[in-house]
Amino acid sequence: MEVQIACCQLSPEVADPAGNEALARSAIRDAVAGGARIVVLPELVNSGYVFDSADEARAAAVGVDGALLAGWAEEAARGDALVVGGFCELTDDGTVFNSAALVDGRGVVALYRKLHLWALEPRWFAPGQQPAPVVQTRYGRIGVAVCYDLEFPELTRSLALAGAELITLPTNWPREDHPAGPGGATILSVLASATAYLSKVSVAVCDRSGTERGVAFAGGSLIVGRDGGVLAGPPRQATETLHARCDLAASAAKRSGEHNDAFADRRPAYYAERLRQS
Amino acid sequence: MEVQIACCQLSPEVADPAGNEALARSAIRDAVAGGARIVVLPELVNSGYVFDSADEARAAAVGVDGALLAGWAEEAARGDALVVGGFCELTDDGTVFNSAALVDGRGVVALYRKLHLWALEPRWFAPGQQPAPVVQTRYGRIGVAVCYDLEFPELTRSLALAGAELITLPTNWPREDHPAGPGGATILSVLASATAYLSKVSVAVCDRSGTERGVAFAGGSLIVGRDGGVLAGPPRQATETLHARCDLAASAAKRSGEHNDAFADRRPAYYAERLRQS
Repeated sequence: MEVQIACCQLSPEVADPAGNEALARSAIRDAVAGGARIVVLPELVNSGYVFDSADEARAAAVGVDGALLAGWAEEAARGDALVVGGFCELTDDGTVFNSAALVDGRGVVALYRKLHLWALEPRWFAPGQQPAPVVQTRYGRIGVAVCYDLEFPELTRSLALAGAELITLPTNWPREDHPAGPGGATILSVLASATAYLSKVSVAVCDRSGTERGVAFAGGSLIVGRDGGVLAGPPRQATETLHARCDLAASAAKRSGEHNDAFADRRPAYYAERLRQS
Repeated sequence: MEVQIACCQLSPEVADPAGNEALARSAIRDAVAGGARIVVLPELVNSGYVFDSADEARAAAVGVDGALLAGWAEEAARGDALVVGGFCELTDDGTVFNSAALVDGRGVVALYRKLHLWALEPRWFAPGQQPAPVVQTRYGRIGVAVCYDLEFPELTRSLALAGAELITLPTNWPREDHPAGPGGATILSVLASATAYLSKVSVAVCDRSGTERGVAFAGGSLIVGRDGGVLAGPPRQATETLHARCDLAASAAKRSGEHNDAFADRRPAYYAERLRQS
């Protein structure tokens, strides 16, 4: 069964949490109305990214039981859809996390707190203390990670090994200032393609665009099929929703060519110990 | 210190082991004369790839102490060079492996027997039973893997974690019949670029070209820098030697951007268990 996946690339504003909330909600509504059943939003979609202080991040942070995710659930309910998005989370004990939630029409199904913090994020966020989740949904098994997590093949591989058929990746990817990869492709797209191909999973990267306090974001959202081929993206406009159809159940098979299997062929006895090193 | 790396893309013939041996030796000689100090050859360079039978593979297989690798060492000695190449190996107890050797001017320094066998290879080869090696050389720390091993991010990551600054990959990559990756790049180049970028290592893929018994090879050799950018390749001609200069010692640093470190940021507690599953 194919499901329509949407990545809503947006340009949140760090100084305007209320505006950001409305922006994301409107984008979900339009994507669901357009047929999407899995809607992916950028990282920190409610707060923006380039904080001046920990106080500013905390002021924009919201609880998992608050209006933000309830709003996503209301929009999801209009089309029996799922929403995966990144948000600035405040916990009951006052901790601030760079989190992502998977929400359906009834509310929050899974919560993930980013394990690998980028750049100045440790000044505003506590690091996650739980593995990235894989959620069985009516459309297939969905893994959730956030932005810089994509640079840890251990994490993306572990999501696929835990059953993820689609890896969703709310992202705030700064515009790349290093050389492009093969064919002039961005490193973000190279990593998404490699992640998909290696583990025979679909990958939906929802990036943001715009410039905040001197940081320009890449606007590099893309949806990649389980063969590593790009199904949609990057968008031509700064704010644009990408759509693509994927058969997630096909990713349960890890067949590679006629005779091989990407998972059954693994030989962890010969590398697992090295990977345990921290 | 920069070192010049060469990938000698060749077209061995499965029915002509003697010719293949001469071809490789000549290519090493030319590469060393051209300034290369690390010379990489394709997989199974002495035997060709598309065997009709296990007997045919066995007939082409040679011992690690035989004339083939001694010839590589003689060529290496002309320029204080190293050679990494794939060959069809026959052991004293009569086992046939898809192997790679790292050779210097004095002889064999390291031997690797391919861990992940592709397509019909299990009919001709026994699988390796040792981790892929990382060798301290005068030019830097060199990891060795073979072809389909590149599709196991656990293996390539483990080489980098074990200290590899350059991953050499003798390869016989069949021409790709699946969709291209981003920017029209081949999946082989996407995987090489992602491997390099993720672990901040150089990657030298030496592929073969030509067609054997109906199997067309990609001729997709390339040398990728530690930032994931392509330094050389793919070749324009079927048989061509690529050259690129890399500072392998720079790969000891795993810095990513201004504030991050690709290795120190790892959090194996949250994925190592999933990766142990076989």
